[in-house]
This record gives sequence, C-alpha cells and structure tokens, in this order.
Amino acid sequence: MNTILQQELKKILNGRFSQSESTRLNYSRGEDTYDPILSKAVVFPETNEEVSKILKLCNEHKVPVVPFGTGTSLEGNVVGNDKGITISLEKMNKILTVNTQDFDCRVQACVTREQLNDYLREDGVFFPIDPGANAAIGGMASTSASGTMAVKYGTMKTVITGLTVVLPNGDIINTGSRTKKTSAGYNLTNLFIGSEGTLAVVTKIVLKLIPHPTHDALLLVPFFSAEQACEAVAAIFRAGITPSGLEFMERDALVWAQEFTQDFTIKVEDNHEAHLLIEVDGNDAAVIMQECESIVAVLEEFETDEVLFADSTAQKDGLWSLRRKVSEAVKAQSVYKEEDTVVPRYQLPELLRTVKEVGRRYGFQSVCYGHAGDGNLHVNIIRGELSEEFWEKGLSNAIREIFIRVHELGGTISGEHGIGVVQRPYMDVVFPETTLDLMRSIKKVFDPKGILNPGKIF
Amino acid sequence: MNTILQQELKKILNGRFSQSESTRLNYSRGEDTYDPILSKAVVFPETNEEVSKILKLCNEHKVPVVPFGTGTSLEGNVVGNDKGITISLEKMNKILTVNTQDFDCRVQACVTREQLNDYLREDGVFFPIDPGANAAIGGMASTSASGTMAVKYGTMKTVITGLTVVLPNGDIINTGSRTKKTSAGYNLTNLFIGSEGTLAVVTKIVLKLIPHPTHDALLLVPFFSAEQACEAVAAIFRAGITPSGLEFMERDALVWAQEFTQDFTIKVEDNHEAHLLIEVDGNDAAVIMQECESIVAVLEEFETDEVLFADSTAQKDGLWSLRRKVSEAVKAQSVYKEEDTVVPRYQLPELLRTVKEVGRRYGFQSVCYGHAGDGNLHVNIIRGELSEEFWEKGLSNAIREIFIRVHELGGTISGEHGIGVVQRPYMDVVFPETTLDLMRSIKKVFDPKGILNPGKIF
Repeated sequence: MNTILQQELKKILNGRFSQSESTRLNYSRGEDTYDPILSKAVVFPETNEEVSKILKLCNEHKVPVVPFGTGTSLEGNVVGNDKGITISLEKMNKILTVNTQDFDCRVQACVTREQLNDYLREDGVFFPIDPGANAAIGGMASTSASGTMAVKYGTMKTVITGLTVVLPNGDIINTGSRTKKTSAGYNLTNLFIGSEGTLAVVTKIVLKLIPHPTHDALLLVPFFSAEQACEAVAAIFRAGITPSGLEFMERDALVWAQEFTQDFTIKVEDNHEAHLLIEVDGNDAAVIMQECESIVAVLEEFETDEVLFADSTAQKDGLWSLRRKVSEAVKAQSVYKEEDTVVPRYQLPELLRTVKEVGRRYGFQSVCYGHAGDGNLHVNIIRGELSEEFWEKGLSNAIREIFIRVHELGGTISGEHGIGVVQRPYMDVVFPETTLDLMRSIKKVFDPKGILNPGKIF
Repeated sequence: MNTILQQELKKILNGRFSQSESTRLNYSRGEDTYDPILSKAVVFPETNEEVSKILKLCNEHKVPVVPFGTGTSLEGNVVGNDKGITISLEKMNKILTVNTQDFDCRVQACVTREQLNDYLREDGVFFPIDPGANAAIGGMASTSASGTMAVKYGTMKTVITGLTVVLPNGDIINTGSRTKKTSAGYNLTNLFIGSEGTLAVVTKIVLKLIPHPTHDALLLVPFFSAEQACEAVAAIFRAGITPSGLEFMERDALVWAQEFTQDFTIKVEDNHEAHLLIEVDGNDAAVIMQECESIVAVLEEFETDEVLFADSTAQKDGLWSLRRKVSEAVKAQSVYKEEDTVVPRYQLPELLRTVKEVGRRYGFQSVCYGHAGDGNLHVNIIRGELSEEFWEKGLSNAIREIFIRVHELGGTISGEHGIGVVQRPYMDVVFPETTLDLMRSIKKVFDPKGILNPGKIF
C-alpha cells in the first residue's frame, strides 16, 4: 500500500485507521478453519460517505477491500487480503428506525442480531433470523444467513425488503423499498444478499419484523436410528405442522455438547443414535398442545425412546443451549471441517447415508447436525487420527463426492454459510462454467476492477 | 425478417410458425390498455432445445424476441415487436413432477395456475399464488406476480426455488435448487423473477407447494370511511392476525362488480364508502373463530356497518367472485388506466388520500381496490369525460405525482404487474440513473445484443 493512499485513508477516517499487527490479526478471518490472512490495514468508517470515499479511493488505486462485520462467518468469507485493506463496519452499529405500526426497521450494517432483539423486546416484535452466532445483520445479509427459526420465519432473503449499499466507484444506492412485495425492475436487493461483499458493501438494511408469539413448546425426541430421525422430519411437515424449530443432532453432537457445557441433565442412552429437537410456537396454548399431539402421533411411525417435553423456561433454555453449543463443542473436540449441505428435507436420510458411506470408504468420522426442517445438515468431518496429507489433499475428494450426491438429490453446497474461500473449489459441482461465467460477468458490472473481497466465491 | 431466417425458423419448429395477420394479432398484447403491436411472426416451440435454437438464430440475426405466455399481463409486458418474433410458450404446458413427500413440483412455463391447482387437488396441496387471471406460471415468474393470497402465502419470489431459462446465445441453464434455502453464489433465480423476459426465456419452474388448509372464514366489512378501511388493515396485523386474504374495495369497485355480475346479494348502503374482504384459514375451526373474533374486536375501533360472515361455500364464492370481477367491471364501465401502487400497509390511508387529492386537482375520478394486506392498491383512473389531450398527455403528470408520493411513503411503482412499456416512463421516480444503469448493464451481461423483449422495463 503506497504512502499517498495511506495518508488519504487516514484523512478520510480521521485517524480510524490501524496498521498494527494485533489489529490486523484480529480482523484476519472469521470463526472458520481457514488460515488467517492479514490485510495491510484495517479502517473503521462511521458513515456511508466515509465508506464511499474509501471505496472510491481504493478503486482508483486498485487496492482490494474486505468488508468485515462481527467476524462470525465460517467459510473464510472475511479472510483478509495481503495486498488490501479490511473495512470493519463495527462503528456503523445504530438502529435507525423501528416501526411497530407495520413491523419493520432500518439498521446499520453492524447492528447485531442480539442487539436488535434486545432493543425490540418491549415492542412485542422480533427479528427472526438466528444463525447461532451474534452476527452483524450486514454480514448475515452478505452470506444469506438463516438458522434455527428459518423453518417457520424465513431467511435473510425473505425478511430483507431493501438495502443501502456502496459500490466500488463510491456510488451509494438504495435497493428495494419498505414494502413486502415489488415488481419494479430487476431485483438488486436479492442479488446483493448472499454476494458476500463481492459486489458492494452493505451499509443499511430494511427488515421485516415478526410479532412475538406468546406461547411455545419444545420436545426432545431420541431415535434409535439416525436415518429414522431424518425420515421423521418430512413426515412432521406432511402432517400439516410447521414447527418454529426442527433440529437434528447425531449422538456425538449431543454428547459432545454435554461434555462442553457440563450439562448432563439429559440422559443419552447407548442406543440413542440421534435426536430431534422440535419447537412449535403460536398465540394459543391449546393449539400448540394439539400440534404437539400431532407430532407425537407422527413419531409413533418411528422407533423412538421416550419424548421429553420441556416443561419450564429453564429446561427449554437448557435444551436450546445444548443445541447451540454443538458447533463450539465439535471445535473443542478436534480439528474439523464443516460442510453446510442442504437438500430437500425428504432427502435427509439419503444425505446422511451418503455422508456415512463416503466416510467409511475414506476412513473419516463425521458428526452431523443442523436445521433439519430446512433440509440443512452441517456435516462436521473430524480430523482425529487422519494423516496431514489426507486432511490437506485427499479429503477434498471425499467432500466432492458428498457434494455431487447433494446436487443429485436436488440440493446445493451451502445452505446458509456462503462460499467464501473454503467452498470455492466445489462451485463447479453445482454450477457449470456457463453459469459461473454469468456470475463473474455480473461481478464485473458492479466491480470492474475486482477490488471487492477478491478470491471469495470465485 | 429475411427469408433465410424464416426458413430456418420453420425448419426448427417443424411448421409451428405463423405469419397470419390473425395469429399475429392474437399475440400482439396482453390484457393491458396499451395499443397492440404485431410481431412479424409467432412461433410455438415445444422443447427447451427448440427455444434454444430459436434464440440462438434470432441472436445471430439480431431479431427481437418477445416471450408470450397466456397474455394476461397488464402493463404491455408482452406487446409484440414489429421487427421481431413472438415466442408463444403455450405448447410447453406440462406438469413434469409433483412431489408430495416434500411439497414441491416442477412445471413447464405455460402450465397455468388453475391447471396446476386442478392437478394438485387430490394431493391436498396447492400453488398459492393467485393474481386473478389464469396466468401461465412462467409469465407469473417473469412479472414477479402475487395476488390475493400473497399476504399469507408469499409471492412468486418466495415460492420459486429454481428455474430453467434459455439465454439469447442458446445456453440453457438451471438456477437455484429444490431446497428452501441456498447460500451458494449469486441469486440468479431472483434476478430472473420479475425481469419480464428481458434477460432470458423462462421454460421450467420449480415451485414450493402448500398443504391445503382445511378450514376458512370470510368476512365482508362495510366502512363509512374509505380511509378508515385502510387504517384498519395494519391494525388487524398489529393484533397478531395474518389473514389469508385482506382485500380493499372502494364503493364504486363493489357496485360496478355487482352491476357487471348482476349479483346484488350484498346490500351496499349509500354511506358505505369502502369494504374490506377478510379471509382467515387454517386447520382448526375453533382457532379460526377466535381469529374472527379478534378481527371484530379490532374493527370496533373503527366506524363500520354490520359485518357479514359468509356462512356457506356458495356465499364465500359469491363474495370472492365479486372481488375478482372488479377488474373486468371497471373495464366494462369506462376506458381506464391502472396503476399498481404499493406502500407499507400502514401508509394505505395516506396513499388513498393522495390519490383522491391528486384526482381533485387534475379533475379525474378514480376507483381503488386491491391487496390491502400487502399495501398493494390498484388505482384505476377513469377516462369518463376527460379530454383526449389530457388523457394522452396531462394525465402522466398526475400519475407521476402519485408515484412520487408512493416513493416517499416507502413504496414503489409496481407491486405485482411489472413495468412493461406502460410504467416505463415512471422508472426514474424510484430509481436514480445510477441504478438504472446497473440494471441496463446486467441486461447486457445476459443479452448483449438486446434482442430479448426490447423496450420493456427500460
């Protein structure tokens, strides 16, 4: 980075510019397993106009820019760039408007999910996208995040009605509107959602909010067969139920979460291969009880052990906490690689069979869990005793085999984490060169010099 | 059109090619008020491969192509091109797969809404997008259609998970997947949805289906003040209710529909300024009754006449029929222009006030009705005694004023009809030149020679 650029940036940012080793390290990656890369500098803009000036300047100098939120992404989506700068949006963290007349709000990019929901608590509405981490809403837009409640309440794609983004040439544009629907011109909003900061930097988001349901119920169901647990998922929907959460945990996922949290309230028997955690919510206790009964009736078709009905808030929180801690528990257990597979939910049993069969052939252990109601299975491949060489080279063939099958089943290679650098080598499994070329050409429209988050997605 | 191209097209299409005046007239426009334009020829492909060959050939010859479904669009979206051909997709009308394991299906572009729902009836699932007309699903994708049930069940944007499209160079690509969510690469699916055949020709659609609710209830509510009827809309949602239909009809809309259908079962009193038609559905009669009671409680804050509860299927059908016939009834009453405005629903009263105030100033009568639950108001401006000159020239200033206010209110210039040629002059009200340029550049990526539906949107 040349001295002129440095000085200009410092001037724009009024000193909110750092080249210290420790700061650069702090912003060198997300929570992913990819090696960190340090950018030349990290900058901390406070306004759209500052972001605009930074991008314009970097574009003129052809200096790469990596947008950074809370750094909770998982696929190397925010890994730094050793020739460029990282823009931390953390100072753009204001909730701008909340409209409880009509359930929407407008927030800056680095407002986090928990920050927004804390703010909304008194208003009786909430922001329903919960990817687990306390992610920045701009980052969640950029990876098209979803999480545990998507099964009932949608994904970033369905709750965002408009965006403010800054283009590499410094242009600031608003997309969409505040309305639920629009049919005016090309859908730029949804093009930016999931584009992982490669087309523009998202600075503001207009979100639909959801009235808080007054009641919920939570069931934990132990299955003697993990495949049967997967089969039960689609069966629950076929019975006309839409749970507000429907999570699958393989045995090890739950046991490791227990070890990690030291919460052994739940007794996991030797013959429990997997669990489903099922939540229903609504405004009427009787209806929820009826839905629970319908679910139990569906479960009778399967071989399950006794269903646990959480009967207190503490117990519910405990169960959800176990589920939420699976990811960290796996991390604590071993080096691992996570694949964010998604298939039509009735294909979950076949996906699980495939993962295990490929694992047997390549000799790896895997732990699967995830948002089964969406057909979204996080496949964690455990390093264990595997050789360095296999882990770094051979494993990608196994992952490729799994993804090929995922694609055959009507699914794709990322349900909610995005592509980043980690999944980039597998894009050709789901997209032929023609489609990738179209995507690259779209990128050129927005970012002709390729300064925005280069190397991510493509 | 040169003779070589003609002969090549005839060969590709095995004779399914017509240059007769009557055929060209049949495919010269939708149900819009725009003057028809006859294309040089109309072709009737049966397969993706035929569509691919046609586009490749027309692209080489730089001959414009207008994709045509059932011709029910309203904004001149399918008006012919006097230098080009119209591709009628009517022979691509097969339902390819229906998966009741997981509620999705794959259909060719010219399967119609009613055809699909008739087919699905026995399976207990349905396709929930109902724009009124028996439109082709490919056309509905192209205009990002929605309609009466969008308030609860979503729009084409939310029910489509994947598409097959043909590009001008003949490439056939699949977008999306069969999964509810994806975070892999740019969202091409949603870019094609609403692009009105200007980027590619949609030939197949993957759709999510909805389990049929077993119960519903329908209320017709007469208001003494049309603005109060608009105010009641957001209030119903604030009470935690999500109706499956929430339609607004100004007095004239209902009265004219009665005259048109000769169904005078409903007594419209002199002081009824507007009606809301409110439907709730679900799988539990008691819950629905409760929701109706909650709605009635909300309505007590407003000055309404007696609420009519439809108590038989026949009565429900009669009420819905009146609502559905409003559009034709207006057409039968007078020459008119319809603007497909959409605002955040709590802004409906202000939108209605604006329309009436602008009408008073410019001296026109208007009849408003539409999907109030989505904030989507169809503003019908009535020709009546207005002069030719005002109708052709002066009126556009009035429409522009309404749209400017719509934009200020957080809305946009089309909720569900698209832009076509009719709304094109108003694109600058909601999109600055920067944004329009981006859209045009995206068009160039897909259609560098500009052969696809030229003159529509831009």
